[in-house]
Amino acid sequence: MIFIGERINTGFKDIKQAVMDKNPAPLQDWAKQQTAAGANYLDVNLGAVSGKPEDMIWMIEQVQAVTETPISIDTNKLVILREAIKACKKPPLLNSTTCAKEKLDPFIEISSQYGASMIGLAMDESGSPKEIGRRVECAGLIAAAWMEAGLPMEHLYLDPIVMPLKFMQDQAKDFLEAVRQFKMLSDPAPHISCGLSNISSKATEKKLINRTFIAMAVAAGLDAAIVDVMDTDLLAAAKTAELLMNLEIYADSYLQKK
Amino acid sequence: MIFIGERINTGFKDIKQAVMDKNPAPLQDWAKQQTAAGANYLDVNLGAVSGKPEDMIWMIEQVQAVTETPISIDTNKLVILREAIKACKKPPLLNSTTCAKEKLDPFIEISSQYGASMIGLAMDESGSPKEIGRRVECAGLIAAAWMEAGLPMEHLYLDPIVMPLKFMQDQAKDFLEAVRQFKMLSDPAPHISCGLSNISSKATEKKLINRTFIAMAVAAGLDAAIVDVMDTDLLAAAKTAELLMNLEIYADSYLQKK
Repeated sequence: MIFIGERINTGFKDIKQAVMDKNPAPLQDWAKQQTAAGANYLDVNLGAVSGKPEDMIWMIEQVQAVTETPISIDTNKLVILREAIKACKKPPLLNSTTCAKEKLDPFIEISSQYGASMIGLAMDESGSPKEIGRRVECAGLIAAAWMEAGLPMEHLYLDPIVMPLKFMQDQAKDFLEAVRQFKMLSDPAPHISCGLSNISSKATEKKLINRTFIAMAVAAGLDAAIVDVMDTDLLAAAKTAELLMNLEIYADSYLQKK
Repeated sequence: MIFIGERINTGFKDIKQAVMDKNPAPLQDWAKQQTAAGANYLDVNLGAVSGKPEDMIWMIEQVQAVTETPISIDTNKLVILREAIKACKKPPLLNSTTCAKEKLDPFIEISSQYGASMIGLAMDESGSPKEIGRRVECAGLIAAAWMEAGLPMEHLYLDPIVMPLKFMQDQAKDFLEAVRQFKMLSDPAPHISCGLSNISSKATEKKLINRTFIAMAVAAGLDAAIVDVMDTDLLAAAKTAELLMNLEIYADSYLQKK
C-alpha cells in the first residue's frame, strides 16, 4: 500500500498560519511525524493562501530539509507545478490532473521530463461523473495518453473519486466497482488511488467509516490513498486487508512492517 | 446483517461446565448478553460433551426461558437435530449440512417440516474444497435441492467456508470470490453466511483481522455470520460496510440501530 500523507495542507489552520508567517516548524513537525508513521509520499498543498510558485517551493524546501520522503505536489495550477517540481530532490507525485486534454497533456509532458508519477482523476473539467461508465472512460483516456507517451504504468495513479457517504450514499458502491474496472485497463495495471477522507465528510464516526471503506477498497484493488497517516487504526485496517488479499505475506508481526 | 451469536458452545469452558452440572446460569447470561448486543440467532452447540438429544434440549430450554431470540441448532447429528427441533419455540436455523446427499436430503426434509432455515456448507463429506469451482458446485447442489423442495430462498444460508489466514493465506481471497459467485446462484439470492472467527485462528491481532475481513466480505455479498456478537467493533465494521454498500440508509445514529 502506498500512503500519501495529507497533513501538510493549508486547509489545516496550523499549516496556513505557518505559510503566512514563513515559520517552518509546523511543516517540519508534520513531515517527520508522517514519515515516522509510514507515509510513502508527503502531500504538499498551498491551497488558496497564495498563487505564487515561490511559496509552494518554500513549503517543499522546509519538508525536504527534515525528511527524505518524496513529495506529492498538490496543485492543479501549471504555473505552480512547473516551478515547484524543480525544487523536488526526488521524483515527485503530481496531484492531480483530470482527463481534459488541455490539462492532461502538459501534466504528462512534465511527468515525462522529470520522471515523476502522476495522479489522474476520473473526471473532466465539467466535474465528477455520476456514472461508472463515464468514470472508466475518463480513466481510460488518461491511461491511453500515459501509455502513448511511453511512460511506465507503475508511475500512474488513477483516482475514481470518493464522494461523501452522507450525501451521495450510492456512490461508495460505485466507487468500488470503478476500482475493479480501472484495474482491468491495462496489464500491468495502473495504481488506483483516492482521497480517502472525503468518504466520511460531515458524518459521525469518521474514523470508523474511513477504515472500513479502505478495507473494502483494498479488496476491490485500491493500492494507494491520500490519508491521515497518523490514524494508526486506518493503516492497520489497510495492511490487514492486504494480507487478506494475499498481497503481503502473513507474519505475526505484520503490523510493525513498514 | 444477520448475526448468529457463537458463545453458547461447549467449546467454551464455562458452557461445558454448565452443561455437565446442569447449571442454567452461564447459558442464560450469555443468551441475555448476546441478545442485548444484537444477535438475531443464538447458536447452541453441545459439542462432544454428550451425544444425548436431551442434553441439547436442556440447553435450548434454558436459553428460551430468558430470551425470545431464535435458536441456531448447531449439530450435524440427525438424531440430535430431530429431537432438538421439537423443543424450539420459533423456527430455528439448522447449522449445518454439507452437500452430501445422505445428509442434505434429511436436513431439507426437516427444514420443510418445521419451516426452519438452514446453513449449507460448500463442502462434501470428504472435506473442504480448495478450488472455488468445487465450492460453487457444492453450493449449487444445495441451492438446487432447496428450490426443488419448494422452500423459500430467504431461508437458505450458504457458507463458502472460512479458512485460517495464518495457515492458508490464499484462501481468504478465494472466499471473497466464492461469496460473489454464490450470490449469483439464484434471484432472489440465498443468504451467504460464515463462521467468521476461523479467519483469525492462531493469529495475532484476531479482532482486527475479524473486523477487517467482515467489511471485505460484506462488500462481496456476505449478509450473515456466526460471530462474537459481544465484539462491538466487529458489529460496527459490519454495519458500516452495509452503509457503504448502500444496503442500509445513512443516519448519524446508524450504529445504535438494531
